[in-house]
Amino acid sequence: MNLILIFPEEVSPDGRVLLDGVRAEHIRKVLRAEAGKKLRVGLVDGPIGAGIVESVEVGAVSLACSFDDEVPQRPRVDLLLAMPRPKVLKRLWSQFAALGIGRIYITNAEKVERFYFSTHVIEPKFYRPKLIEGLQQACDTLVPEVQIVRDVETFVKTEAFADVDRKLIADPSASIGIVETLSADAAGRVLLAVGPEGGWTPKELALFEENGFDGVGLGSRILRTDTACIALMGQLAAVMQV
Amino acid sequence: MNLILIFPEEVSPDGRVLLDGVRAEHIRKVLRAEAGKKLRVGLVDGPIGAGIVESVEVGAVSLACSFDDEVPQRPRVDLLLAMPRPKVLKRLWSQFAALGIGRIYITNAEKVERFYFSTHVIEPKFYRPKLIEGLQQACDTLVPEVQIVRDVETFVKTEAFADVDRKLIADPSASIGIVETLSADAAGRVLLAVGPEGGWTPKELALFEENGFDGVGLGSRILRTDTACIALMGQLAAVMQV
Repeated sequence: MNLILIFPEEVSPDGRVLLDGVRAEHIRKVLRAEAGKKLRVGLVDGPIGAGIVESVEVGAVSLACSFDDEVPQRPRVDLLLAMPRPKVLKRLWSQFAALGIGRIYITNAEKVERFYFSTHVIEPKFYRPKLIEGLQQACDTLVPEVQIVRDVETFVKTEAFADVDRKLIADPSASIGIVETLSADAAGRVLLAVGPEGGWTPKELALFEENGFDGVGLGSRILRTDTACIALMGQLAAVMQV
Repeated sequence: MNLILIFPEEVSPDGRVLLDGVRAEHIRKVLRAEAGKKLRVGLVDGPIGAGIVESVEVGAVSLACSFDDEVPQRPRVDLLLAMPRPKVLKRLWSQFAALGIGRIYITNAEKVERFYFSTHVIEPKFYRPKLIEGLQQACDTLVPEVQIVRDVETFVKTEAFADVDRKLIADPSASIGIVETLSADAAGRVLLAVGPEGGWTPKELALFEENGFDGVGLGSRILRTDTACIALMGQLAAVMQV
């Protein structure tokens, strides 16, 4: 926890915040903060700020908080990901938030088992705390927007992807990678689509291409979805300087 | 399993291989291969090849294998990693092998708990099967060499790192990243050092710098060790075209 995230409704009008649970215990036991110590805090979907510790007790920490005027900018990367095995997705949420993603679309695909969508892992009450955890790791406050898409075909055809400047699709057959593709112009907003473990079908790939997605490769090695996502996000971060 | 890895001692002089266990069940149940089907195979630390299925029974698959003359090149990336929490390292082995790493040094560091080294996760009988799993995912045969280093200071001072052309250290304070650092010259062999969750101490950072390591940053976001390693490996793969 490199930043303590606070929900707006937790802040009293004078800027005082009373924390309990995991955050209080983190401040007391891991940070070993005492009264007077200044901590980095942030308001969920709001600005970063500073919290001066007023008192520390078991399960109860009081902070006097003040926040910056400006809200951090939403990360310029969006991710469209064919639903991975729930066990895999479970571990990805916090990493996605940490890496910095604006919007996450979890979609079906021909090679995605339908029963994956019955998992609790795609319910907000499961993934929101994981996203918050990732933001607290990475010192960000902007919770990625998540959308579960059960009909990727219609979605890709009809969704305008407003404000997205460049649409990319990870495609093992593409000879050019993210770094080369974006090195000349990495200024705008990028949406990256990543397929399921078995890949997109030729029909799906054609659909993405017809709708403006350019293929980007990841070299000759075939990676698991989770490894591929994080490696690709690392590459996007490098060229986009996020 | 995108490639079936076979140990040299499993191949009879006429190229016949009798598989049991996980590989046999994978061929039978996942690949649903029947006699005559050609599978991609590889010899551990040896060449890639083809295996023609001769017979498939429960728990027993016979393949007639032939191998290429050339052995794939060892990945040009080495990793020096301060020992992460065993639970984290456990999940990283297969991903390291999949991403393509030549040598992996797991080291101590001032901010690494000593008891981490008593885990079975750093024993060859634990990590070798995980490395093999990652190679079978990525279609490679070269098992990363692993060395457990309990005195990183002496190691960095005395180890010659023969054949390494560029030594990098992930350092959040560095203003330049891997892609920029290597874009002009990414031809040689690279060693990347990644610190523990709490970071290297200033003394350790100075030690690496004195021994020829250049700092590379990963932007303003603070990532968990596992996320950072994979994101950085993705960046190395992008610039080195591995």
